[in-house]
Amino acid sequence: MAELTKVFLDEDEIPTHWYNIAADFPNPAPPHLHPGTQQPLQPDDLAPLFPAGLIEQELSTQRWIEIPDEVRDIYRLWRPSPLHRARRLERALGTTARIYYKYEGESPVGSHKTNSAVPQAYYNREAGRMRLTTETGAGQWGSALAFATQIFGQSCEVWQVRNTYESKPYRRMLMETYGATVTPSPSELTAAGRALRERFPDTPGSLGMAISEAVEVAAGDPDASYALGSVLNHVALHQSVIGQEAIKQLAKFGEQAPDFLFACAGGGSNLAGISFPFLRENIEGRMNVDVVACEPAAAPSLTEGEYRYDFGDSSQMTPLLKMYTLGADFVPDPVHAGGLRYHGMAPLVSHAYHEGLLRAIAIKQREAFAAGVEFARAEGIVPASESNHAIAGALRQAKQAAQDGTSPVILIGVSGSGQLDLPAYSEFLAGNMLDA
Amino acid sequence: MAELTKVFLDEDEIPTHWYNIAADFPNPAPPHLHPGTQQPLQPDDLAPLFPAGLIEQELSTQRWIEIPDEVRDIYRLWRPSPLHRARRLERALGTTARIYYKYEGESPVGSHKTNSAVPQAYYNREAGRMRLTTETGAGQWGSALAFATQIFGQSCEVWQVRNTYESKPYRRMLMETYGATVTPSPSELTAAGRALRERFPDTPGSLGMAISEAVEVAAGDPDASYALGSVLNHVALHQSVIGQEAIKQLAKFGEQAPDFLFACAGGGSNLAGISFPFLRENIEGRMNVDVVACEPAAAPSLTEGEYRYDFGDSSQMTPLLKMYTLGADFVPDPVHAGGLRYHGMAPLVSHAYHEGLLRAIAIKQREAFAAGVEFARAEGIVPASESNHAIAGALRQAKQAAQDGTSPVILIGVSGSGQLDLPAYSEFLAGNMLDA
Repeated sequence: MAELTKVFLDEDEIPTHWYNIAADFPNPAPPHLHPGTQQPLQPDDLAPLFPAGLIEQELSTQRWIEIPDEVRDIYRLWRPSPLHRARRLERALGTTARIYYKYEGESPVGSHKTNSAVPQAYYNREAGRMRLTTETGAGQWGSALAFATQIFGQSCEVWQVRNTYESKPYRRMLMETYGATVTPSPSELTAAGRALRERFPDTPGSLGMAISEAVEVAAGDPDASYALGSVLNHVALHQSVIGQEAIKQLAKFGEQAPDFLFACAGGGSNLAGISFPFLRENIEGRMNVDVVACEPAAAPSLTEGEYRYDFGDSSQMTPLLKMYTLGADFVPDPVHAGGLRYHGMAPLVSHAYHEGLLRAIAIKQREAFAAGVEFARAEGIVPASESNHAIAGALRQAKQAAQDGTSPVILIGVSGSGQLDLPAYSEFLAGNMLDA
Repeated sequence: MAELTKVFLDEDEIPTHWYNIAADFPNPAPPHLHPGTQQPLQPDDLAPLFPAGLIEQELSTQRWIEIPDEVRDIYRLWRPSPLHRARRLERALGTTARIYYKYEGESPVGSHKTNSAVPQAYYNREAGRMRLTTETGAGQWGSALAFATQIFGQSCEVWQVRNTYESKPYRRMLMETYGATVTPSPSELTAAGRALRERFPDTPGSLGMAISEAVEVAAGDPDASYALGSVLNHVALHQSVIGQEAIKQLAKFGEQAPDFLFACAGGGSNLAGISFPFLRENIEGRMNVDVVACEPAAAPSLTEGEYRYDFGDSSQMTPLLKMYTLGADFVPDPVHAGGLRYHGMAPLVSHAYHEGLLRAIAIKQREAFAAGVEFARAEGIVPASESNHAIAGALRQAKQAAQDGTSPVILIGVSGSGQLDLPAYSEFLAGNMLDA
């Protein structure tokens, strides 16, 4: 019975550097472009929105970037995050696979988003920018930034996708508990919001719309910055602590490498965070991990999008990003995984996909929630709506292994807790969930 | 900067035995009485409600009781729970105190209640009892038992205090996600419920009423058991893993002993769990910890109740328990700390209080939530409504230390996460909270 169930690490094993996959791509990733000149973006182009520290990271091809002591000290509040062996889930599935999951739900706000929110707030504080604006879908990113800005004494203004603002008030309350102000998007407070409301009076909102509003406000105030919770290179960079820890923790379980890695993918920050350190191992020939991006069928940017330059927001205010995209004006069905309802995919993830370094599958939300319930009843933890997509992908593989009689090592990135997603579980259990 | 922030322990440091304070009281605790004969309760008297393993623990005066391997194996899903040094809170308060908190919110359901739910489900499974009934207030206990019974393949029927069932649906959804059925109490399903509804048509319900209903159903089915989340001796026993771990973890921080220990107290399970191992150290002369029970002003059983034999439920169906009580028919104001709205205090806690081994203070909910917000903004974690009472007590002491220039070691029991209590935070921040 006394089999190891989970591995933390000591605090001094929190990574000391972020890992930047841009240094290791066999072919370099395409640069972001200035929308006016169509030329590669220069640091000055980003200065109205971001502080110097983050711009440097956004454009960097340096492999390792040191984590400032002050950021690492805040990471200690919840990092290292645990890696669990899902022994009870394995037994429930009757699988011969060995299943592990890296759980980011024990951060103060219940998701991986704090890994980037803290350094973003930090570099803004270093630059004297004490007012931050941002967008949020389900509220994971907004609550993470609300928490981080509170630590550094900054103000935080969040535009939340209207559909989620109204239907799931708990994360708004969480943001307000940390002292942030939250506005449903599209709103009347910005020119972008007013234009969107005129064009689409009944819109449930989208991340692209909320980004437009937050960007507009930050661009109009030289003391303000915009903060983005996914998509951009510096966000993927910060999230690399997840995968770095997972590699060390798997070794403590006596595993050389996973055979499969499943992670949910919306904007791409969680997928990048857990998978890029493993992709480095693949590129350098030490591992051969099959990395699988699990995206929602309602916003299938990798599996059905086009790989081209597109805007990050609905109102075409951001730089042009080379990414798999459904089009900047795409508004996905209001599925429960609000954090995945984005039209594009992070340029670094898109490039990795284009180069064949990872693959992707699209999963409908009923299959995702069925997997989430199975996981919760075996492991106890109720996963975030987003994470359920990764679990569903892993369950397909584990069931396949049971049929084939193989014993692969499967690693799942469980990006967050679903305690604030319980109405979605309730809808699923009642049989009322749209199969989108 | 690189100061230790939290200590987990390895899984093999999960306690191997539960600690039973009944073995160490200088004067023995008064026995439970049979309500008919007024004689000390015999094992057979409890057989209709509980399995043999739990009855033996309820009446035991053995100091150490071995934790079954299967239970300890399930504890591994989330134990040992972390002990944090609240460095950011100390700085925010400007206190010279060293503040630690033992955080039970990382259990699958977000509270300490799983520590007893798992062994209760286990001993019932051992006795072949596959149907469990229980009561719940805010839903922490109900969700813990729903989780535990799911693991052992048992069915679980929960009577939830009506006020909370209606105003805070998330924990009901959590119970249902684990597969339990939840009924608002008082209900039409039981004779006790029907009688209570006739007497008090508009009652918000109470834990005492919900207990009556759950007991009635279990007593009427020889294959069913009733499970109680607090008050009884075996529950205090199971919760002793909290304090045992905290003692080891404080030593890893280099602390000999806390000077003060603050824990919230409703039925008494969390207070007993964290404090009894420290009281043993006090009794044996190795420590001198000032243990402070923090109860809600709305249900002040220790500070304003009478010490006498009383029933555990409203309909007078339970054994007579010697406890500090406000009377079995007391219905507290519907304050947010639903888990503390109980008329009595655990007999073992009551005895310890009567013997002068611990003291008690009553705290109104606005002070509790002000402390909770201060804690959340410093440490990130949003504490449960119940836990806020302990934090408020600790903050009084820490501020006193700042005034006096002393440096006491303060340990806080943070019994759970407040992610599902966010509407209460919202009400507090909006200035609408009743100061009860």
